Amino acid sequence: MAAPFLPPIAMNALPSSYSFASAPQALLDALAARFDARQLSTALAVREQHGRDEGSISAPPPAAVVFAESTQDVQDTVRLAARHGVPVIAYGAGSSLEGHLLAVRGGISLDVSRMNAVLAIDADDLTVTVQPGITRKQLNEAVRHTGLFFPIDPGADASIGGMAATRASGTNAVRYGTMRDNVLALQVVTASGETIRTGTRARKSSAGYDLTRLMVGSEGTLGIFTEVTLRLYPLPEAVSAAVCSFPSIEAAVRTVIQTIQLGVPIARVELIDANSVRLVNAHSQLTLREEPMLLMEFHGSPAGVQEQAEAVQQIAQDWCGNAFEWATTPEERTRLWTARHNAYFAAVQSRPGCKAISTDTCVPISRLADCLLDSVAEADASGIPYFLVGHVGDGNFHFGYLIDPRQPAERETAEQLNRQLVARALALGGTCTGEHGVGIHKMDFLLDEAGAAAVAMMRAIKQALDPQGILNPGKIFAL
Amino acid sequence: MAAPFLPPIAMNALPSSYSFASAPQALLDALAARFDARQLSTALAVREQHGRDEGSISAPPPAAVVFAESTQDVQDTVRLAARHGVPVIAYGAGSSLEGHLLAVRGGISLDVSRMNAVLAIDADDLTVTVQPGITRKQLNEAVRHTGLFFPIDPGADASIGGMAATRASGTNAVRYGTMRDNVLALQVVTASGETIRTGTRARKSSAGYDLTRLMVGSEGTLGIFTEVTLRLYPLPEAVSAAVCSFPSIEAAVRTVIQTIQLGVPIARVELIDANSVRLVNAHSQLTLREEPMLLMEFHGSPAGVQEQAEAVQQIAQDWCGNAFEWATTPEERTRLWTARHNAYFAAVQSRPGCKAISTDTCVPISRLADCLLDSVAEADASGIPYFLVGHVGDGNFHFGYLIDPRQPAERETAEQLNRQLVARALALGGTCTGEHGVGIHKMDFLLDEAGAAAVAMMRAIKQALDPQGILNPGKIFAL
Repeated sequence: MAAPFLPPIAMNALPSSYSFASAPQALLDALAARFDARQLSTALAVREQHGRDEGSISAPPPAAVVFAESTQDVQDTVRLAARHGVPVIAYGAGSSLEGHLLAVRGGISLDVSRMNAVLAIDADDLTVTVQPGITRKQLNEAVRHTGLFFPIDPGADASIGGMAATRASGTNAVRYGTMRDNVLALQVVTASGETIRTGTRARKSSAGYDLTRLMVGSEGTLGIFTEVTLRLYPLPEAVSAAVCSFPSIEAAVRTVIQTIQLGVPIARVELIDANSVRLVNAHSQLTLREEPMLLMEFHGSPAGVQEQAEAVQQIAQDWCGNAFEWATTPEERTRLWTARHNAYFAAVQSRPGCKAISTDTCVPISRLADCLLDSVAEADASGIPYFLVGHVGDGNFHFGYLIDPRQPAERETAEQLNRQLVARALALGGTCTGEHGVGIHKMDFLLDEAGAAAVAMMRAIKQALDPQGILNPGKIFAL
Repeated sequence: MAAPFLPPIAMNALPSSYSFASAPQALLDALAARFDARQLSTALAVREQHGRDEGSISAPPPAAVVFAESTQDVQDTVRLAARHGVPVIAYGAGSSLEGHLLAVRGGISLDVSRMNAVLAIDADDLTVTVQPGITRKQLNEAVRHTGLFFPIDPGADASIGGMAATRASGTNAVRYGTMRDNVLALQVVTASGETIRTGTRARKSSAGYDLTRLMVGSEGTLGIFTEVTLRLYPLPEAVSAAVCSFPSIEAAVRTVIQTIQLGVPIARVELIDANSVRLVNAHSQLTLREEPMLLMEFHGSPAGVQEQAEAVQQIAQDWCGNAFEWATTPEERTRLWTARHNAYFAAVQSRPGCKAISTDTCVPISRLADCLLDSVAEADASGIPYFLVGHVGDGNFHFGYLIDPRQPAERETAEQLNRQLVARALALGGTCTGEHGVGIHKMDFLLDEAGAAAVAMMRAIKQALDPQGILNPGKIFAL
């Protein structure tokens, strides 16, 4: 069996308070007695793949990877880890951005990607129950025949368990809400290896503490999800997508603000800056006008969709937007939205070897222009290449600063831009993270945002539910 | 100063594990040193008024009532209570139904009704920040000039703090969600008398544990709310309300099920059974057809409202519903909805001296007919007078069994009906409480629904956040 730990690969930006523990050999032996080679790996390549995410921070890999195939596998793994006092890090698709999956306190990775079954489709109730490893695209394939869909769509084809764990959202949140609003119930394996159920398939409940909402967004630190019950929605009778180019980012943003304030039930409204349009065009073979752009979608009845689109077109005209260009066929729409979802990858590939440091602030809609425009000016002045996209209907947007990880000065400049942006967002009544979560990377921001007393309350809950601190320790707050 | 405690008024249905503690004289002296007679009362009438709610259970009154006028008042009261180890029960409008306000472990009542200011209206962001004592009607008066409204409307004119504490909803939840969905941020006084802030005015966030959603529905057991930030909504461009009578409850319910399954964005859809229509007619001088009835409201653009109404009328016709009767003016609509909101009081007044035992089950929409019809048959067979109303678009409905509190057999019959209904709802994937909360009355139901391990997790959180157990102890679970 391979040695349980390796020297650090890189320690960029890791809080200095961390000490790296190993998984004791006794646990590895116990896991090997429980799981065969198909379900347990200590191969370096496998461990390294499970010891990183899509973000910019790295750490030594976990000591082993367990591939769970059932709730019982998860329970047994957690129980063994608890017995040996070793951390367990749940792993779905590996697409998190803030260091959520890094084994900063050592331990083992618990990969649930093989637990990707659809357990029950209750089309009449607009609900579905799935295992946590299913990805959002797999889920939508599985329910397509019912005429229903699941709208939450982070950029990556993330796992539903991971999306629940980070309280993810995406382009449809302005109309359909986030994972907070769309997870009805969970089965959770606790730190002691017990299972509990939270919530029911009923649409609302006042039955005690909202454990579902406490678990959603807990980043694997309070429990490991083994079943997730989600809301589904009827596929809209009519869908239309349009792009609209603007002379400035401000004009695009002002259009969005007025649209939201008027209560237009727009399904998606994404901002893409001129440079990102360029990157998307190159990556996805499109010919979008290389100007600040809104990419929109309207859902409803045919008349309702037309009414919404006319209302937004009217507002856009007031801000010198061009006439809407329509994506009329489902294929054209899919092509456009796939290009949008690939914006992150298009940008990263535009600078070979770069890492993207993503920001994720979200502010009240009236503050969106103030928050965004000053940060654009700062980013332009910095000289760091960047892309800018955003779910601006929610007040949420992402800069991606494309840094050369071998140049510490670039990382520091990007982190400084991020700090300035977060400070601005908090001063405007916003949050440091709209949808990516805290992970390792935003722990200081969380303290600034929530205050020491609220973070102390979070720690007290963590301590009560996971007294040994074995569930993904060192995330959200230092532990 | 009055003696701190009194013999029990009545102990009906209280779990036998409770022991009644008093507030020690030392605390009463300390409160008297801090608050003058305008803010502190030990008068029996005042204590009795604060020691009951609208439900059917009674207990000895609290030892004193503090009328808080500021966050500082709340903090000082909690700190003094903590120093003396005495319970504190937050009190808003007194309209809870499950014994939430009863001083089952002694202690003092902390009345926040004077803290009813609107602190900030951010109309551009569709948010408002209020003190907890403001009632939902006061709030809607205060924001009327902005063209916005707050949709959550439990039957009573409850306080916003109390509505947040019980995760309340009402007739608009099918379209606008519940307090879970509409509380963005809180200021909370913790068990140690500290203040924390949870959430921000941003529409979404992944910043750590969702303390806002943990606090919403915690029934005063984890903290006392001193500021509440809420979402507001644009007043719809067009509103139309209609009533539709049906030959049977089943026909009405089937109409609702299909409406929801089709995704019609109906704003309100209430079921009222024939007997309740009779009671409402008598109480509110209306002439509604005394048959099972749906009371509906549609919000949207003029064309959208018409489209929705036509879709539902079509479904209703298939179930032999009558033609819609429209309430065309705002005054007619208000009259109809006021009558609906007064159904509870109309029913209680129909049997002088009676108490209503309210059920509150909520099931997945496809199970609504099964759950409801069997329970109607059981109630009819019991001989206990009852009313039946429901927010059936959510799968939530209320029987109110009208019992003579001097007849223990009637209470037992009603409680048995409630138990049967809850067992049925849980077997169908539902919850024992859609919107009223657990309080004292539903603790056993919560155990059945969530399971011992999930309730143990709730207790662990309570213990971590309120180690002395002074915040409304003995609610949600025995303590």
